[in-house]
Amino acid sequence: MIKEAVYHRPKNEYAYAIDEKSVHIKLKTKKNDVQKVTLIFGDPYDFDSNQNSWISNSTDMWFNGSDDLHDYWIAKVTTKHRRLRYGFLLENPIQSIYYTERGFYKKAPSDASYYFCFPYINKVDIFSPPDWVSSTVWYQIFPERFANGNPSINPKNSLPWNSRRPSQKSYYGGDFQGIMDKLDYIASLGVTGLYLTPIFKAHSNHKYDTIDYMEIDPQFGDKDTFKKLVQKCHAKGIKVMLDAVFNHSGLYFPPFQDVIKNGDNSPYKDWFHLHNLPLKTDFLANYDTFGYVPTMPKLNTENKEVKAYLLNVAKYWIEEFDIDGWRLDVANEVDHAFWRDFRKVVKEAKPDAYILGEVWHDAMPWLLGDQFDAVMNYPLTTAITEYFTTNNINKAEFMNSVNKILNMYPETINSVQFNLLGSHDTARILTLSNSNKEKVKLQMLMQFTMPGTPCIYYGDEISMEGGEDPDCRRCMIWEEKKQDKEMLGFVKKIISLRKQFKVFRTNNNFAFLSPKDRNNIISFTKSIADQELLVVLNNSEFTEKFKLPNKYNQQKVLDLIMEDERTLSDTISLPSYGFAVYLIEKK
Amino acid sequence: MIKEAVYHRPKNEYAYAIDEKSVHIKLKTKKNDVQKVTLIFGDPYDFDSNQNSWISNSTDMWFNGSDDLHDYWIAKVTTKHRRLRYGFLLENPIQSIYYTERGFYKKAPSDASYYFCFPYINKVDIFSPPDWVSSTVWYQIFPERFANGNPSINPKNSLPWNSRRPSQKSYYGGDFQGIMDKLDYIASLGVTGLYLTPIFKAHSNHKYDTIDYMEIDPQFGDKDTFKKLVQKCHAKGIKVMLDAVFNHSGLYFPPFQDVIKNGDNSPYKDWFHLHNLPLKTDFLANYDTFGYVPTMPKLNTENKEVKAYLLNVAKYWIEEFDIDGWRLDVANEVDHAFWRDFRKVVKEAKPDAYILGEVWHDAMPWLLGDQFDAVMNYPLTTAITEYFTTNNINKAEFMNSVNKILNMYPETINSVQFNLLGSHDTARILTLSNSNKEKVKLQMLMQFTMPGTPCIYYGDEISMEGGEDPDCRRCMIWEEKKQDKEMLGFVKKIISLRKQFKVFRTNNNFAFLSPKDRNNIISFTKSIADQELLVVLNNSEFTEKFKLPNKYNQQKVLDLIMEDERTLSDTISLPSYGFAVYLIEKK
Repeated sequence: MIKEAVYHRPKNEYAYAIDEKSVHIKLKTKKNDVQKVTLIFGDPYDFDSNQNSWISNSTDMWFNGSDDLHDYWIAKVTTKHRRLRYGFLLENPIQSIYYTERGFYKKAPSDASYYFCFPYINKVDIFSPPDWVSSTVWYQIFPERFANGNPSINPKNSLPWNSRRPSQKSYYGGDFQGIMDKLDYIASLGVTGLYLTPIFKAHSNHKYDTIDYMEIDPQFGDKDTFKKLVQKCHAKGIKVMLDAVFNHSGLYFPPFQDVIKNGDNSPYKDWFHLHNLPLKTDFLANYDTFGYVPTMPKLNTENKEVKAYLLNVAKYWIEEFDIDGWRLDVANEVDHAFWRDFRKVVKEAKPDAYILGEVWHDAMPWLLGDQFDAVMNYPLTTAITEYFTTNNINKAEFMNSVNKILNMYPETINSVQFNLLGSHDTARILTLSNSNKEKVKLQMLMQFTMPGTPCIYYGDEISMEGGEDPDCRRCMIWEEKKQDKEMLGFVKKIISLRKQFKVFRTNNNFAFLSPKDRNNIISFTKSIADQELLVVLNNSEFTEKFKLPNKYNQQKVLDLIMEDERTLSDTISLPSYGFAVYLIEKK
Repeated sequence: MIKEAVYHRPKNEYAYAIDEKSVHIKLKTKKNDVQKVTLIFGDPYDFDSNQNSWISNSTDMWFNGSDDLHDYWIAKVTTKHRRLRYGFLLENPIQSIYYTERGFYKKAPSDASYYFCFPYINKVDIFSPPDWVSSTVWYQIFPERFANGNPSINPKNSLPWNSRRPSQKSYYGGDFQGIMDKLDYIASLGVTGLYLTPIFKAHSNHKYDTIDYMEIDPQFGDKDTFKKLVQKCHAKGIKVMLDAVFNHSGLYFPPFQDVIKNGDNSPYKDWFHLHNLPLKTDFLANYDTFGYVPTMPKLNTENKEVKAYLLNVAKYWIEEFDIDGWRLDVANEVDHAFWRDFRKVVKEAKPDAYILGEVWHDAMPWLLGDQFDAVMNYPLTTAITEYFTTNNINKAEFMNSVNKILNMYPETINSVQFNLLGSHDTARILTLSNSNKEKVKLQMLMQFTMPGTPCIYYGDEISMEGGEDPDCRRCMIWEEKKQDKEMLGFVKKIISLRKQFKVFRTNNNFAFLSPKDRNNIISFTKSIADQELLVVLNNSEFTEKFKLPNKYNQQKVLDLIMEDERTLSDTISLPSYGFAVYLIEKK
């Protein structure tokens, strides 16, 4: 056994409370090195004085998938008095060994202090995301390009809708009235959440360079229009999430302009990270920025006034406009202390508000219960697009990635991760897929059968094309004959299935059925008490056959895509880029 | 190369900011598997568009010791704009391989997004313990047993000082006046911090069952006496740390008595974790307790009133009495949210107050900068006592443990860890050492040459004996002829050396020189810019020889124990339980 590869550490994704009585415990071992893992656990103070030994229980751990190097194991345990000590018994045909905080032992240590410690489950520390998120399907709108409902507030030099491909500087006049006019369409998709990229007064068409966090950008409408938009969304059961661009302001943010003008005498000079004065706002910018973009000066979120200002912004749009969530731009470059207070302010204003961080890397330090509810699940985006479109990774690598992603965070967090295939920052999924619509469907099926909360980027549902930014921000197509109705039907169907069947949303008992072989059939199963989901995807230009495990032979299933009942045989044959989604009702 | 054993994860002890420009990066690899590790790092936005590649630098990582299974590596890097992406090049004679967040690669990925991410160094998130702690030497006093300066406030039935061994219930009348009377003695030791176990009004002699957190226990004196004590300590350059028993109250805490009396009608019923009513306070206690001790009902620190009450306690004793630190009893069973607010309140009242948690297990979740400054370093206590006294571990295991401990937390935390050999909760170090005083000296030398802040348990410096609690709480011996003056001289000497030489306190370039062989010579070295410390300890009943590495042959050194200069030969011979501490001045 390769003991050096065994990993566990409490109070992150390897040990976390699910509720006031229960804890999930995970373990990582070298791939194919261990056959069975048993969790040994108990209350630290349960002591058998006759045996001079700690009193413990044990339970088998569930094999939770493997990536390229490791196997993952999980168990759920119920504590007696909210306290837990625990260790692991690792077995393979050659060796049995105990793993504890103090190391490896041939015999189980009798002293509870040797074991790993989950000291006490305090309710306030339990990560508990809003209930509604895991069953929400989002629709992301880039407001300048979704719909123009009020031409009277068009920016100067606005182009006619969809008259040409967007440049970095073009305007088409999308606005709130436009979104309201299209709310029936949005609702008809089945989505239950709107994510709007920034709407506050800003200089550019993307509005990530804020001028005033307390004002609506006049090209979108005014506060009354926005309030009406939120109300109309809520009336249709649709939540609204805004974009909080708190890492940096725009060049034309008045406090920054004041520093440009007044230098050392500006009362705002500590609002930013200045290197020296006077300010140069060209490519030699002498202040911290987002990236090296001089028009996006980084805000000093440690400064008390800046912090108070931004926390007030966070509260204001919830209290006055009843928004339901904040998506945090460049979230990992802002200080943790700021986000801890942000969470307090937001959850006090609305206890079930959703706090979503933009973090492209490992985000565990922000997901300990004191900062975010979830992050944008870019690792999943990358795995899906690199396997289904760019072919940058092969089938085995894809399966490894999915298992790694599912084991990256606590399951309580997985259930509210924000799963996207593309956004205003990436080329559109159809374009990445070389206009192959069947490939897009495979990717959407992956997205919709993962735990988390999926998001459709506006227009993907009608097969809009678009390359890298700004081409991915084309005007929404409203001419019905130019909309892809077949794709629209497919998207509606999977949204509806996901909402209808809980087993779509869980990763309970997730397991790949397909071997890591050379064909490109991906198959996996998940199950809850009364239902099992069986998914088979053919990411190949050829017809492929997949031999099902024996237990499925003659199994009666509901074909969720074809909407009929059928009986499985021992093999499934799928055409090029074909797919099947079966539901098995357990007796 | 065993890739499965390679471990890194940002934002804990593997990657942390030291100051606004610099970050420590660590890596763990399988023992003896990798010969060289190079850190590759840079600003994520530095991009060479000609090469279509990220622009990075590289630096060698320092081998930072090994434990039983792993080697540890460390590097300090300076960032250009406070942002960092980084990866590792691992080399051995057979293989060279790059390790990044996305996995292992034969060639260095050209895309910065593949690398590990330390997004931005925000000053407020940098762990920065109080400056004074790392050079402090503590003296722990159990007030009931240190000195009786005011017999008029003796508890009823107090026994004459040291007239018999203490039982769980005996009283001898130790008090604040006694401590004040002995302040010259305390100062003469060279200690610069007093840690007092609880002093608030309580029922027992140990005072861990608080009745009133806002009152001094009358057996110790009153608030005026305590204020005077703190002032006198400060006048002598001695800091004062109190014990915060916030996990549980005592049975006679009036709010708990109110719940006993009024049950469901008590306004305090949510102050505790009740299972049902009426309360039973016998061994069937129907409420959460510390351990299974019915007289120590667990406080509900999530309750707003309880939290406000305890946070006020934390502030009150700092603001009104100017104390310098809080030691937190059973700290890991109290909620993280409580401790985050506790830190804010304490640091606001006194920015350089020391917050020390009692955590016996891996404490990283409390040491992320938002909760504690340090924890009681029990893993070090265990390693030292198990090797030098109980022989529960051998020399190799001891060396492995020390390396593991030094790699457990960020070095910024190591520098303020609370290093103790014993306390009111453990048998005295001399008794554990079978009354072998030379063994005690070896252990104290280990304690005093480790990074952190060492603590002497009252009386250990004059060779007091004492078995398990309550025997380890005997009255301090004040009869001079019964005090071990030789041990006293040794303790004063090592305290003075530690204060005089910074190299004693650092673990900069720490490395064991002794091989993991069968004799019991432990030797290690540490160094700073101008000085190197060379320590050699013989934990054996026989005279042992130690062959020094060649570079020390004919080296001129200062013998810090014998206080003379000498020239080393190629071998050091030490008598049974002998030791040597040499200082090398670098040119």
